[in-house]
Amino acid sequence: MSVDTSGAAQGAALRSDRTVLGNGLTVVGEHNPFAATVAAGYFVRTGARDETAEIAGVSHFLEHMMFKGTDRRTAADINRSFDELGAQYNAFTSEERTVYYGAVLPERLSELLDLLSDMMRPALRQEDFDVEKNVILEEIAMYEDRPHFRVFEVAGRRFWNGHPLGHSVLGGQDSIRALTREQMLTYFGRRYAPSNLILAVAGAYDWEAVTEEVASLTGAWEPFDAGRALARPDPAQGTGETEDSKLERVHTAVFAPGYAADDERRYAAAILGSVLGDDSGSRLFWSLVDKGLADSASLGHEASDGAGAFVGYVSSAPERATEVLDIYRRVLVQAQDDTLDAEEWRRAQRKLATGLTLRAETPLGRLVSLGVGYQSLGRYQSVQDVVDAVMRSSLEGGRALLADRPFDRLYLHTLGPANVPS
Amino acid sequence: MSVDTSGAAQGAALRSDRTVLGNGLTVVGEHNPFAATVAAGYFVRTGARDETAEIAGVSHFLEHMMFKGTDRRTAADINRSFDELGAQYNAFTSEERTVYYGAVLPERLSELLDLLSDMMRPALRQEDFDVEKNVILEEIAMYEDRPHFRVFEVAGRRFWNGHPLGHSVLGGQDSIRALTREQMLTYFGRRYAPSNLILAVAGAYDWEAVTEEVASLTGAWEPFDAGRALARPDPAQGTGETEDSKLERVHTAVFAPGYAADDERRYAAAILGSVLGDDSGSRLFWSLVDKGLADSASLGHEASDGAGAFVGYVSSAPERATEVLDIYRRVLVQAQDDTLDAEEWRRAQRKLATGLTLRAETPLGRLVSLGVGYQSLGRYQSVQDVVDAVMRSSLEGGRALLADRPFDRLYLHTLGPANVPS
Repeated sequence: MSVDTSGAAQGAALRSDRTVLGNGLTVVGEHNPFAATVAAGYFVRTGARDETAEIAGVSHFLEHMMFKGTDRRTAADINRSFDELGAQYNAFTSEERTVYYGAVLPERLSELLDLLSDMMRPALRQEDFDVEKNVILEEIAMYEDRPHFRVFEVAGRRFWNGHPLGHSVLGGQDSIRALTREQMLTYFGRRYAPSNLILAVAGAYDWEAVTEEVASLTGAWEPFDAGRALARPDPAQGTGETEDSKLERVHTAVFAPGYAADDERRYAAAILGSVLGDDSGSRLFWSLVDKGLADSASLGHEASDGAGAFVGYVSSAPERATEVLDIYRRVLVQAQDDTLDAEEWRRAQRKLATGLTLRAETPLGRLVSLGVGYQSLGRYQSVQDVVDAVMRSSLEGGRALLADRPFDRLYLHTLGPANVPS
Repeated sequence: MSVDTSGAAQGAALRSDRTVLGNGLTVVGEHNPFAATVAAGYFVRTGARDETAEIAGVSHFLEHMMFKGTDRRTAADINRSFDELGAQYNAFTSEERTVYYGAVLPERLSELLDLLSDMMRPALRQEDFDVEKNVILEEIAMYEDRPHFRVFEVAGRRFWNGHPLGHSVLGGQDSIRALTREQMLTYFGRRYAPSNLILAVAGAYDWEAVTEEVASLTGAWEPFDAGRALARPDPAQGTGETEDSKLERVHTAVFAPGYAADDERRYAAAILGSVLGDDSGSRLFWSLVDKGLADSASLGHEASDGAGAFVGYVSSAPERATEVLDIYRRVLVQAQDDTLDAEEWRRAQRKLATGLTLRAETPLGRLVSLGVGYQSLGRYQSVQDVVDAVMRSSLEGGRALLADRPFDRLYLHTLGPANVPS
């Protein structure tokens, strides 16, 4: 009962590297001499949870602006440079963090590091800010036709009950309209401290060359402190409802209290989430989707900085919503009264372990877990370390989580046409 | 100006394998001794285009039923077997084909082949058929809240103008409700001929063991003929409109005539699609998304069996829809009058080539292009072969496509609230 990720032909474990530069920037690497590519990315420990209501959405708006030019490059230069590198690249913003990354052939790594590092010190020009504000407003408007997204916005806010993990990543039309370039500059100056960033590199690279280049590229970055308040969550329970007569289906987001990203119980919570709510075979799947009662019914565990939650989703026809929500709730509550089965626990462990292994097969796939892992724990975890932790996580640990009865404290929020029971 | 996919550390090209069994089943492989996993999948040359209106949606419904059991296995057995193998697995149905695949650690390949091969001879039990019909109806209903999907359903049907490439993969509520198990059996017996299937394997494997095992597993499969009519398309042009007052945004699907999967011009068409409509930097992106006029504006080329099309999408606020569609159309039409720029052509070539390389980095990522490539061309193409073809595709070839003026023959279909101009 072990999953070996080392790869028959690859043999030994991969080497991990770490250097902290004088300005406080941490550079971490996982060296894979067999990789055909290399991926690199900046992981910034800032997101919606680090915003006030007045500047809601600034992290995500800023992420867009980072592509709009620096003192050395215009927006078109940045776009052209990525293309000329033949890079796959992207960026994303969450409640927790903002990440900028790309993957290239190994001989182009130096140019990729130059481009990404330059982007981390953006020009934030007023004219670009004004144009990009419309792009952000368009993106917010686009989600109005996506009920799955909308129900999580409102449910998360209600469940987190004032805790910053309930903040909206996109912000609102109003906060974005009112946002000024000066507010963004202030936020940038407060959050993008070198010590609040990690540069991660995965794949084929020369560590000495990487660290020398990054030290030179970021040498002028001024160090300062950028902390994060870790408020204790006081999550809501119960139900909520948003009526929208324009919808055809009832969309329900489900939350329950969970575990933080540095809590050892997060592994058992992830396995438990998979036993109950994996979307290709789980108690919820067999009770609702396989029976044709709901088009989707799932649950997982999300471990964040200082807090965590079980997060689920279910969607059905309005006329079946009462029955479907009853079954959804009953499956979770009954799991607390039944006993967890050793066999289903083992299958979920293996499913998670294989998923981890397959996602880590490419430098780009590996990069995000490498960077997020470092940011959450402050240390390196190999894929094998995580797989071992999952496979070691005992059935008794899962039963202990259920004994805390997290699913007696569910928050369910429904979005759908009128008279939806909840 | 070349992109080397062989991988610094991997050196030589990967070996390709091919065996045609006595029953007509073709087994193909791409052997990668450095891979930590192996992927395998059945590619069935059947999909929505091989259906009549009476049985619309049967290919996709059948894909679901293939997971519901065989003479040797129940549905629960199949699900449990995949989990116990630690497999990542899935299936999909398109107009063109139905594909069933999984990825495992190399020592589990034999069990994966046994499971997938057994699934290809399903029991199709009446009680499973009745329950799964509700699952399919739920899946169809789910798309009612997804306007992006809905607009492509209607636009594709109109553009293809009676050609089977315009058939709906899901089918309709009515055709699914009326479908009988006997009709599905007839369809299965007509389409799942061994000669109409390809089994593809990518990653770390022993070819002799694979072919021996598959020959034994599929030895009882009866050969018969399963062709496909390749009607000549007569695509529509102009505009169409579907009003839905419940929507917040105007969603527009765009089609124009393109090239078949075995037409050499497909490479130039893909590059041209990227120049005009790549979603991270292209003429449409800079004219519409970057300016904050549309939340999305893209174009690509889809090469199918015997026919192809440029396919695009644009979405905006209702009050800006006229302006946005004018600009969208003008960008395409003007490309036919302007000259294509050598620099933008080269960038799009490189972008496509890198994307191909990165997607092929894992056995599971490689599997689909390996199987689809074999099915389209009847021969092996390495990733390097495709990359070379893209990089060799000349600017003059792109200009020749534009000289045919495909964008004078656009079909645009809008889905949105009332009074949307088109």
